[in-house]
Amino acid sequence: MGLKVVIVGAVAAGPKAACHIMRLLPDAEITMVDEDSLISYGGCGIPYFVAGDVADEKELRSTSFHMVRDIDFFEKAKGIKTMTETSALSIDRKNKTVRVKSLKTGEESDLAYDKLLLATGSRPFKLPIPGIDAENVFAISTLTSGIKVKDLLIANKVGTAVVIGGGAIGVEMAEAFSDLWGVETTLIEFAPHLFPGAVDEPCGNIMADCLRRNGVDVYVNEGAQEIICKDGKAVAVKTNNREIPCDLVIAATGVRVRNELAVAAGLQVGLRGGITVNSRMQTSDPNIYAAGDCSEIVHMVSGERMTIPLGSLANREGRVAGTNIAGKNAHFKGAVGSFIVKAYDTAMGSAGLTMRAARMAGFDPACVWISTGDRAHFFPTHAALYLCLVYDKRTRKVLGIQGTGPGDSDSLSVRLDTAMAFMTQGGVGDGARVEDLCNAETAYAPPFSSAIDAINNLAFTAENQMNGYLTMMDPMEFIKMAEAGFPDPDTVIVDVRTWVEVEPFVEKYGKDKWIYFPYATSRENSLDVLPKDKNILLFCSSGGRAYEVIRVLAPAGFNNIRFVPGGHAFMSKLSRKWLPESQQ
Amino acid sequence: MGLKVVIVGAVAAGPKAACHIMRLLPDAEITMVDEDSLISYGGCGIPYFVAGDVADEKELRSTSFHMVRDIDFFEKAKGIKTMTETSALSIDRKNKTVRVKSLKTGEESDLAYDKLLLATGSRPFKLPIPGIDAENVFAISTLTSGIKVKDLLIANKVGTAVVIGGGAIGVEMAEAFSDLWGVETTLIEFAPHLFPGAVDEPCGNIMADCLRRNGVDVYVNEGAQEIICKDGKAVAVKTNNREIPCDLVIAATGVRVRNELAVAAGLQVGLRGGITVNSRMQTSDPNIYAAGDCSEIVHMVSGERMTIPLGSLANREGRVAGTNIAGKNAHFKGAVGSFIVKAYDTAMGSAGLTMRAARMAGFDPACVWISTGDRAHFFPTHAALYLCLVYDKRTRKVLGIQGTGPGDSDSLSVRLDTAMAFMTQGGVGDGARVEDLCNAETAYAPPFSSAIDAINNLAFTAENQMNGYLTMMDPMEFIKMAEAGFPDPDTVIVDVRTWVEVEPFVEKYGKDKWIYFPYATSRENSLDVLPKDKNILLFCSSGGRAYEVIRVLAPAGFNNIRFVPGGHAFMSKLSRKWLPESQQ
Repeated sequence: MGLKVVIVGAVAAGPKAACHIMRLLPDAEITMVDEDSLISYGGCGIPYFVAGDVADEKELRSTSFHMVRDIDFFEKAKGIKTMTETSALSIDRKNKTVRVKSLKTGEESDLAYDKLLLATGSRPFKLPIPGIDAENVFAISTLTSGIKVKDLLIANKVGTAVVIGGGAIGVEMAEAFSDLWGVETTLIEFAPHLFPGAVDEPCGNIMADCLRRNGVDVYVNEGAQEIICKDGKAVAVKTNNREIPCDLVIAATGVRVRNELAVAAGLQVGLRGGITVNSRMQTSDPNIYAAGDCSEIVHMVSGERMTIPLGSLANREGRVAGTNIAGKNAHFKGAVGSFIVKAYDTAMGSAGLTMRAARMAGFDPACVWISTGDRAHFFPTHAALYLCLVYDKRTRKVLGIQGTGPGDSDSLSVRLDTAMAFMTQGGVGDGARVEDLCNAETAYAPPFSSAIDAINNLAFTAENQMNGYLTMMDPMEFIKMAEAGFPDPDTVIVDVRTWVEVEPFVEKYGKDKWIYFPYATSRENSLDVLPKDKNILLFCSSGGRAYEVIRVLAPAGFNNIRFVPGGHAFMSKLSRKWLPESQQ
Repeated sequence: MGLKVVIVGAVAAGPKAACHIMRLLPDAEITMVDEDSLISYGGCGIPYFVAGDVADEKELRSTSFHMVRDIDFFEKAKGIKTMTETSALSIDRKNKTVRVKSLKTGEESDLAYDKLLLATGSRPFKLPIPGIDAENVFAISTLTSGIKVKDLLIANKVGTAVVIGGGAIGVEMAEAFSDLWGVETTLIEFAPHLFPGAVDEPCGNIMADCLRRNGVDVYVNEGAQEIICKDGKAVAVKTNNREIPCDLVIAATGVRVRNELAVAAGLQVGLRGGITVNSRMQTSDPNIYAAGDCSEIVHMVSGERMTIPLGSLANREGRVAGTNIAGKNAHFKGAVGSFIVKAYDTAMGSAGLTMRAARMAGFDPACVWISTGDRAHFFPTHAALYLCLVYDKRTRKVLGIQGTGPGDSDSLSVRLDTAMAFMTQGGVGDGARVEDLCNAETAYAPPFSSAIDAINNLAFTAENQMNGYLTMMDPMEFIKMAEAGFPDPDTVIVDVRTWVEVEPFVEKYGKDKWIYFPYATSRENSLDVLPKDKNILLFCSSGGRAYEVIRVLAPAGFNNIRFVPGGHAFMSKLSRKWLPESQQ
């Protein structure tokens, strides 16, 4: 008799664990249970299925060799029994059984286990507002709901849509609606910027700007207060500021752990409800494991326990759980929340902590932002990257990276993943220092990177700031000043670009506010044009020249100069309102 | 009086150090000396300039903000004195002076230094064969030589070319010649495969195949014995096998360290001539530093001392040297030889050790090869990656990664750089284990990667092999067998793909040699078709199904099965000769 394994949940962690166990322990008797009829699919692909990039939903639940992963596939090819449309009701830990109920027949039965894996995942957080249950409000949490939405689009029943929630699903769905289907789309986000959990304000604003450039209305600081319905259907979304008519609503406001089974069985759960596991993905009952969205893992930088609903982590955790269930030994040390999203021409992502998260975790964080090329600046396909490195001032440790880049290449991925690898060195609470990233030996050839790679450039800048060679201002502080017309009489901008670049700014802001101090002759320029008693903001096209000039001016006693991060390239990406008219 | 710094060499490490020193120490007095008239250029961009991707050579020596880095630029913008067309003759360490000579006027003078940086780089290795000095034989070691070659192409004087040497410059030049200029190009390589220093045979063969598909004749195991000249001009290259007529020869046969100054000054140099430095890039004379191609650095995996001629390393080393020269403290721990090259539609690269290098360094290495997708297999732009992980059997340490991927994306870069970051953890001799790569938390969204990323997949496969769950055969062993028609009567291929895929192979090789054993029903198939007394090679489309079937067959006593790495996808990439006619 083989080991009896019951797995609750058959989307990502569950099937991964099941298949892995079967390979390690070919005589295992595995039963997977899932409430849905569709299983083992790439949930992150649903927006691409709705958009049409993926033509058939079957592609999302097929193997790379084009076999559909259905009950039959798991049975015949994998030797795994699967019960779909079946709910797990309770766990009897003493007798080691799981009570399940068929949603089709109502029939109940008990499944005996030697080892049990809970891969119950998460469910969409349901906003507590009127109208949320209307039939045309979708959470896109299952493939089934994605299929329903696409059917409505195909039937031409969606002219306008409101997306509630500016996270990955919200933004990807907004793109899917507006780009292929020509749906008039509005996205609202309760927080002050998009992706508040994953990035700080500048990245969120770049993504909002990207959506707006592509015709999506975006409102931040706006919560949905009511979904106005007519005949049981949503017809508008009411926020604190407006009422937005719509034929369909996507409610993508995050997820909550599905831990009811675990809680009812007396298993330990964390503060946010994630099922507590050790590094072997073992719960407080040694015969029960948990993996995927429902399990609580450790943030390797902050050391805090958290849940992260990502299919990629679910697969990795599922494999670790599977190894241990099969009687071998594997560990999952934790995660840094690596994240990436694409919308239109823009990629945005992060790994580790944002500034806000770093402060909350008790670090003494600072950050730098750079505007840089993703490959040799002389190579034809080069594009801009805007990157931020968050580090701890006390320990010089790398705490996080975030940024945006071109949507049609992997040039942002490379830098995120490289930084991730450094941040996870040595396990929880260890990691790398900024100096380690300075010499990160990325592979170089002009079509792929630069002799001084973006990640090195980012670390160099952070090191220069840590060592007191430059002081970078907050990007949003500059934007707020700029959009207000630089009202502070004690602040001037010193622009070290060439006259042709500087002239429109001098014209707009006046030569006493926007001072021309060309880089090329910076060692010979008269210093009399620079007011020593004022706050100087050093400005150039992307940052390199401004830093250089700061170091030229330092010996002359100009030590209170601040550096405008990423220069014109980055600042104009964050807001165009303050630019000369010809550049708006 | 500021610190007097003399820097010999003004291409990569020299200018990087000079600029960095000036920023840290604004009153430093820096003099850079170089024999060439062109300085501070991206040498790795020369093939792209010849190809036409880069229109003007000035782009290779411009900043990202389009200023040409010439003497004037360094003087005015950087405050650095530069003497071009000037040779450094000798170092007087006692009096701390460098004797220099103008190549234009012949005038000699002494430059006093407090700190000296040797960034003398490397020179092309000159093959000791007749004709190597002919005027139309070029090494592409300087921008000046690149300009000469491009002028000849523009003047329509090159109909045929021979490239000696199958490394990065050779391959990039072959592409430049044949792709844009339509030059009939032949590339010869002395070693058994291209890029013998950076990759093992499979990768080298994929690159050779890529060149051949694009019209370049490639001959390996062929050394140039003579360059046949007429009126002082090369007209043909004679190898051990043939004589190849040509209008131009590129001799790209590697480089040798330029260490004469250092040696004459009594500085310590290593076995291969690299100038010995500590982690601060300081030579055996504490007032003299060395950085770039001429310095000897430590391989972080093998611990061996080596020289690596790469502009990217030169920049990083130059910055470390600059920091230390400026009286601060920085370290360069070593390198793993990260490397990438593009030719036509193919990217190829590596980091760490090849199998051959790992054996030579005293490890007990093994490797796995996989054929995998670079992003979600349902995402339209997905492409194939062929990756190899080299690991140490004793310690389970990651020793190296290598592979090929699409030339028009960064999807190979991401995996190389991620692996690099793991391999360099903790410094020389430390690094990561295969298990660490299993959980490498690469950022996932379908446009950029897979839920189980290629790097995870690669590590999973290696772990499975380490743990005895599969035995992978050497890819070239399979190809050799296949090209010979599988002559060994005791070897059969068991193909687990679908009948439509398998049929042409059964037709070609016979049903007793090429056995159909479909994956979908592998748990039900009769085992009688499988000869227990023969060597079974398990074959599928890319590897996943074959592994699965191996695990199904294991309990039935089939334990001597070997796995054909990367299946049909990889094997057909390595050679098409053995395929059914319809697929050749």
